[in-house]
Amino acid sequence: MKLRVRTLDLDAAGKTIIIMNELDALDLGLHPLDRASIDDKLTAIINTSSKFVKRGEVIVYEEVKDILRLKNNQKIDIKPIRRFKSKEYIRNKVDGRELGEKEIMEIVKDVVERNLNDLELTAFITSLYIRGVSKTEIKSLVNAMTYTGSTLDIKKDIIADKHSVGGVPGDKTTMILVPIIASSGLTIPKTSSRAITSPAGTADRVEMLTNVELEKEEIERVVEKTNGCMVWGGALDLAPADDLFIQIEHPLHLDPMLMPSILSKKKAVNATHVVIDIPTGMGAKIKTFSEAKKLADDFISIGKDLGMNIECGVTFGDQPIGHTVGAALEAKEALNTIMGNFSHDLVDKAISLAGILLEITGKSGNGKDLALKLLKNKAEKKLREIIEEQGGDPGIKPKDIELGEKRFTLYSEKRGRVMRVSNSQIVTLANTLGCPKDKRAGVEIHKKLGETVKENDPLITLYAEKNYKLEEAEKKLEDMEPIVVIEDLEKHMLTKKISEEEVLFLRT
Amino acid sequence: MKLRVRTLDLDAAGKTIIIMNELDALDLGLHPLDRASIDDKLTAIINTSSKFVKRGEVIVYEEVKDILRLKNNQKIDIKPIRRFKSKEYIRNKVDGRELGEKEIMEIVKDVVERNLNDLELTAFITSLYIRGVSKTEIKSLVNAMTYTGSTLDIKKDIIADKHSVGGVPGDKTTMILVPIIASSGLTIPKTSSRAITSPAGTADRVEMLTNVELEKEEIERVVEKTNGCMVWGGALDLAPADDLFIQIEHPLHLDPMLMPSILSKKKAVNATHVVIDIPTGMGAKIKTFSEAKKLADDFISIGKDLGMNIECGVTFGDQPIGHTVGAALEAKEALNTIMGNFSHDLVDKAISLAGILLEITGKSGNGKDLALKLLKNKAEKKLREIIEEQGGDPGIKPKDIELGEKRFTLYSEKRGRVMRVSNSQIVTLANTLGCPKDKRAGVEIHKKLGETVKENDPLITLYAEKNYKLEEAEKKLEDMEPIVVIEDLEKHMLTKKISEEEVLFLRT
Repeated sequence: MKLRVRTLDLDAAGKTIIIMNELDALDLGLHPLDRASIDDKLTAIINTSSKFVKRGEVIVYEEVKDILRLKNNQKIDIKPIRRFKSKEYIRNKVDGRELGEKEIMEIVKDVVERNLNDLELTAFITSLYIRGVSKTEIKSLVNAMTYTGSTLDIKKDIIADKHSVGGVPGDKTTMILVPIIASSGLTIPKTSSRAITSPAGTADRVEMLTNVELEKEEIERVVEKTNGCMVWGGALDLAPADDLFIQIEHPLHLDPMLMPSILSKKKAVNATHVVIDIPTGMGAKIKTFSEAKKLADDFISIGKDLGMNIECGVTFGDQPIGHTVGAALEAKEALNTIMGNFSHDLVDKAISLAGILLEITGKSGNGKDLALKLLKNKAEKKLREIIEEQGGDPGIKPKDIELGEKRFTLYSEKRGRVMRVSNSQIVTLANTLGCPKDKRAGVEIHKKLGETVKENDPLITLYAEKNYKLEEAEKKLEDMEPIVVIEDLEKHMLTKKISEEEVLFLRT
Repeated sequence: MKLRVRTLDLDAAGKTIIIMNELDALDLGLHPLDRASIDDKLTAIINTSSKFVKRGEVIVYEEVKDILRLKNNQKIDIKPIRRFKSKEYIRNKVDGRELGEKEIMEIVKDVVERNLNDLELTAFITSLYIRGVSKTEIKSLVNAMTYTGSTLDIKKDIIADKHSVGGVPGDKTTMILVPIIASSGLTIPKTSSRAITSPAGTADRVEMLTNVELEKEEIERVVEKTNGCMVWGGALDLAPADDLFIQIEHPLHLDPMLMPSILSKKKAVNATHVVIDIPTGMGAKIKTFSEAKKLADDFISIGKDLGMNIECGVTFGDQPIGHTVGAALEAKEALNTIMGNFSHDLVDKAISLAGILLEITGKSGNGKDLALKLLKNKAEKKLREIIEEQGGDPGIKPKDIELGEKRFTLYSEKRGRVMRVSNSQIVTLANTLGCPKDKRAGVEIHKKLGETVKENDPLITLYAEKNYKLEEAEKKLEDMEPIVVIEDLEKHMLTKKISEEEVLFLRT
């Protein structure tokens, strides 16, 4: 059925929705929430209207307009969609059967073409979580997810990459690691994500220093010139299925696709050597060393199957990395650090992970030492080159990065030592202050685990762009204890049982 | 945040959607697909718009307007929704833990208040399916689903009811059974559903004879007067969670809630004695007798826990019931049957199931005999009473029921016997012809299993309201064999292996 387009600036989180007159829909046998193909190119979800949308007319949401580049009054052809085989394959997984390569390719293809709805996708994700994902399935998923997207075209024998499984706030390690690796002569085309609900993603942080939204060709040029880049992967169409899976996984707090997600993004940039950071600790995503070890072993063995040399670093994840959480605060801290004003845990983490990359690529027998040397001598220059090539000001100074002007500092009411820094409370505060939307909002942490605290020492400072957000965060802070100071550790041990925690050290 | 309502006749299958200006949404920390409460009464899903919806304004979908009886320019208060405990409880089920009574009550309450989105509901349904639903969980689900809805208020010690787990087309048994039971003096307030994707539901069939959309008080009056009714349960708010679960189960072809769904509807009419029909066969929902037996045992034992006397009838489900599929065709067949122009398998099924009810309520020692007597002597009169009290014409004749005028009959090209009648192909044909939307569309089956066929005997007739639907069905029919006629059974046995099937008989 040919219908006349009426564009309307409606957004449902990127869902491809069209609104038809209900009689037109019925003529096609379509009901609200059924799916239809548009010009045989895109699958859309149907909403209906009895009057607002006239017969012969169709309203398209933003996403549909953008994907198909539609204009008002243009005619589009709407056809009901018949059954997809991938629905049956998902059912196989629900029923506990391992999926083969072809079944997975079909499912991923239909995900990318938007042929599967939220119910089907959720049933798939939930069953992957409950039934487990086998190594063969992971390999097929990675291949399918890479195949159904674009790839970065960089002609080098060795392409290095880094990824964190995430879950620890304030992790600006990438901003230190990429310049170190690029200054060693290795190629590292780093793509990153923006935050959805976490306080900041690497792309959000880097954006405070330079442009991160580059076209594929521009990225290839930047990497050709500087050996590295730090860009937003979102618009590049690298393993696009990943983002669609994450839209389901994220709100449900289920992540059976963790490994395929990460590996498909790496394969899409043709990475040959990858270091994966696994932050571990009771306050992190991965709780125990044995869990981290299992994940690391899987990464390494599946990486081998996929022709990637992968090494993992299990890092301490029980407090934020460095002293800041929030895009602008973190960009400032990273810039300060690379200029020699070190945040020690951040530096240690960055050179440890960079060291692994330098070793597995054969650049050095003692990677961590080399990484520290590069950080001291070459990384700042390299960072500024990358900033410039991506379109930013290479002379940027930390003080140029503005922070939210509404501020509140919490001071310690007692002396003692920091016994605990709560990742989750700091994330809640940062989000209440406006992160990730308000780039200049965030939390500064003055004292970290084990540090000595005197009475009236500042513990944390809250930054917000808007007064009411600062007020809301202050109110929440009253019921929180993001930084726990203990006067007398032994006395404390007697009055409060501390849950058993494995002590975790970085592997190298 | 107070916003000014703008109503717009948009429908997304009953989802409660509102469209806010994206800046207003961001001020509340809301993104598309997040949820918000309206006046603390209803949870809505957020879509956003940058221009079409002005700041300070909110567009509400039909469902929201209807539930809250909103008018244009009225102010409503939108608040972001915080976490619901039920999300954690669903996660418990995903992780394989049995749910307690309070957890289930919380989940069902949040389902009815629309606090859970499709992702969460699908994760719940999928995990119930994979992990299984325990008897304790079923009991809690039934209680919670009944508690969160209305109940029918009929003051009788014995209230009879009937239900079919479904899956066999043409099943108009209820239209014969209800008049039989009501004419015996027992009370049977029967509520039924409309078809969603099947060719016809009981409510659709009865609607061809009389009005089925009655208010609660009208139903109570009809039952008071005639001992029975046959109405649409949809608008009565009986166990409303059921419909919301079915919206997820149906498209995924998963039905872990089968038992709680049925039993909560029965409990909501205060049924004391229930017969449950379990159509069984390779072409039905339940495939084998052992599956049917297990389901029957569960119904009986959980019914006991809930204070309901339940008996099950395992019926032959491998071909349609009677000779017609489609609302008008079936209503006509039911009316003919009750007037003495018997469709024999339909009569046998109806009196067998009615017989079970007459026995468990203590009305008769040989229920089937009594049921046949009542069918011959009293049922027609009772049916006409019910038709009249529900607002229809008590003098209605079979020929008053119009059928689709676009018709096509398929004739047999050979002589022999009917070896198979395909439920699924007949359903596909009926739906292609326009069912369930086109009430006068459908399929008439001239020859059933085991019947002798001569060359050029009619096999099936297709009825449609619209020419193009008839044409489409005829085209599909070319690749189908809904009625398989075998010339020489033994020869056939030699050339084609017949899959093992258990022979099934009605229990009584």
